[in-house]
Amino acid sequence: MNAEIISVGDELQRGEITNTNSAFLTKKLNSLGIVIMSQVTIGDDPDAIISSVHGGKGQADLLFVCGGLGPTADDVTLSAVAKAVDMPVKTDIPTWQHLLSIFAQRQIDVQPENKRQAQYVGKLIPNSRGLALGSWVKLGKQRVVVLPGPPSEFQAMVEQEVIPMIIKEFNIQKTIKTRALHFLGRPESILMNDLKSVMETYPDITITSYVKPTNIELRLTGFMNKQIDIDARFDQVTKMILEKEGEYYLGMGNNFSLVNKVVNLLKQQKLKITGAESLTGGLFQSTICSVPGASEIFDGGFVTYAASAKVKLLGIPSTLIEHNGVVSSATAEAMAEYSRKKLGADFGLGFTGVAGPDSLEGNPAGTVWIGLARKGEKPISKQLHLAGYLGRQEIRLLSVQYGLQMVLREIKK
Amino acid sequence: MNAEIISVGDELQRGEITNTNSAFLTKKLNSLGIVIMSQVTIGDDPDAIISSVHGGKGQADLLFVCGGLGPTADDVTLSAVAKAVDMPVKTDIPTWQHLLSIFAQRQIDVQPENKRQAQYVGKLIPNSRGLALGSWVKLGKQRVVVLPGPPSEFQAMVEQEVIPMIIKEFNIQKTIKTRALHFLGRPESILMNDLKSVMETYPDITITSYVKPTNIELRLTGFMNKQIDIDARFDQVTKMILEKEGEYYLGMGNNFSLVNKVVNLLKQQKLKITGAESLTGGLFQSTICSVPGASEIFDGGFVTYAASAKVKLLGIPSTLIEHNGVVSSATAEAMAEYSRKKLGADFGLGFTGVAGPDSLEGNPAGTVWIGLARKGEKPISKQLHLAGYLGRQEIRLLSVQYGLQMVLREIKK
Repeated sequence: MNAEIISVGDELQRGEITNTNSAFLTKKLNSLGIVIMSQVTIGDDPDAIISSVHGGKGQADLLFVCGGLGPTADDVTLSAVAKAVDMPVKTDIPTWQHLLSIFAQRQIDVQPENKRQAQYVGKLIPNSRGLALGSWVKLGKQRVVVLPGPPSEFQAMVEQEVIPMIIKEFNIQKTIKTRALHFLGRPESILMNDLKSVMETYPDITITSYVKPTNIELRLTGFMNKQIDIDARFDQVTKMILEKEGEYYLGMGNNFSLVNKVVNLLKQQKLKITGAESLTGGLFQSTICSVPGASEIFDGGFVTYAASAKVKLLGIPSTLIEHNGVVSSATAEAMAEYSRKKLGADFGLGFTGVAGPDSLEGNPAGTVWIGLARKGEKPISKQLHLAGYLGRQEIRLLSVQYGLQMVLREIKK
Repeated sequence: MNAEIISVGDELQRGEITNTNSAFLTKKLNSLGIVIMSQVTIGDDPDAIISSVHGGKGQADLLFVCGGLGPTADDVTLSAVAKAVDMPVKTDIPTWQHLLSIFAQRQIDVQPENKRQAQYVGKLIPNSRGLALGSWVKLGKQRVVVLPGPPSEFQAMVEQEVIPMIIKEFNIQKTIKTRALHFLGRPESILMNDLKSVMETYPDITITSYVKPTNIELRLTGFMNKQIDIDARFDQVTKMILEKEGEYYLGMGNNFSLVNKVVNLLKQQKLKITGAESLTGGLFQSTICSVPGASEIFDGGFVTYAASAKVKLLGIPSTLIEHNGVVSSATAEAMAEYSRKKLGADFGLGFTGVAGPDSLEGNPAGTVWIGLARKGEKPISKQLHLAGYLGRQEIRLLSVQYGLQMVLREIKK
């Protein structure tokens, strides 16, 4: 089976925005054994859309037309596809009424153009994340699928609606499987060197490494064969990898999130967390709050960017900071312990260091101390030597991840 | 002039990661009038790289080979390109020594594979952001350009090194120009309806709208002609747009950042800012701290997620919260004013609301109150009715942007 993807949008064609949708769709289709024949990017031009749909007619089993379904004048995809397949544009009344109610809640006037967001061709594909419908058109042996461009809407519709429709209509049985394992604190080159024996033991499983902003991902890939239990094979490989690299292991899964794991473990054990942040400036706490239901384990905390704020808000003696320096084990542990006590929490984290670009107290950008205080125990701390060239944002992001890893190790102790 | 882009990487080919580099490069090349003939994605396979380089040989003026230059076994691009163009792989000694010193600072053992990161073919292209060199190979009338895959390195090298090299070697004079204008608080459909008269007045300037996570961008595009001063034309169009939509205008530029603008205005006026955050959980303060030199205008602040923390950390009377509700104008203004006073700052912001997915006190997800307190003045507040389907992260992100917009309006008052 094969597919063709037509991406519509002037901004895409000029490279002003990145086509994340094509990559997402490719991955999902590949996992069903569907091969992408071609990917075409065209502007918001009805004639180009019509000729692209005609050009692909009948050749690919699936023809995707993505983007250009909004309410503005340059959103021409739906009417162009309707023309190309010679079918009428229909309006879905319940969607239109839902749209009117959303606009009323948001206290925004409805424009005539907004009606386009309730229109479709062929069979309607619902959109749980936004205001434009998808379309599913049967055209001989081919299916033409029209989807909106905003990635959150596009991805939800592909996963929730389109993939199940494809599996059903084409009766698909073959698949590729992958498993993602996430690590932090181990350089990629050392990690991959250590795993040479694993790769030799399991030559039919491909192991690739990928440096992500917040961790290193190992991706196991195997081609599915009905006779082989590939998940069991993955389990064996994972076990062998963790015997070597378990210390740096965070967790598993394509959508793995360290903060989700930590927050859920804290919830399970009914433990509360807080923090005082200097170089991270609130990023640790806002990461905690990104998890729905974080209020069960987090009441609040401090951003103590200046030394004076560490004294004023936390009550750390100014002599302690002067004696040890702002970027020090002692200051990080004091920030952790004083914030923990102020909130009456089980865990307190303290983040201090140099986000850069300039150095501080003789420490180069990337020098970070993280303190961790646990109720009833002596605070501990960890120093990071992150690469200064990573830049301010990534140093802050990584610091938060290392802090979460310290909590993970402490909970699992 | 034309170019071909070959992207190398198993993860790219399987759609596991998104090819942001191609889009970035396309945009940069387009602006020089260079047309992309084809974009090919291949796996980490030496034979595929060699035949792709041979396949494009001589047809495109520029042949880009991107990705696969790291230290691990699947990074095979450089040796494959060397084979394809029949030139030797060379090692740059200063780069190798720099690499050794970085590994020493980071306290990591050097692996033999790391030497690859100091190697190149033809002429070396330096990398200010990471640990892999680029290569520039002259092959008859064609130039083959090899660049590393990590986007931050790739983009910096394209902008700082490759584009100037292309302009010089090919003596380029033609260009497309664009200008980006950023708005917040105006629905896209209303904005674009209001601008119909502008588009009629200036038919040679294309105006397109694009909904970004934190604002709406209007993009003006004009094709460069040496006889026309296109920047002056953009100025006229901008003026006409701002006469209609100035209230919602944030600023201009491809890399425009509202927080940069606000932090720099605060620096200029020597004003300090703080905040107390509930639904945003530290995101406002960490956004402020993302700007280098934020310490001049920000000492610290509070995350008061639970009502109890609003009382304990800020000293807000619990009766005020009970009487008005957590999600209320009064609570937002109190958070702003109490945090401002605690830190002795000129501005205090208070963020309270419903990030979702669940509703709170009868308010649906997306209901947000932002309080702003300015020294010597009565606090003010603003209510947002964001769409609940945006999800938790985007509601928090937008709340921070609206808070920054309130500060911007206040400073410019």
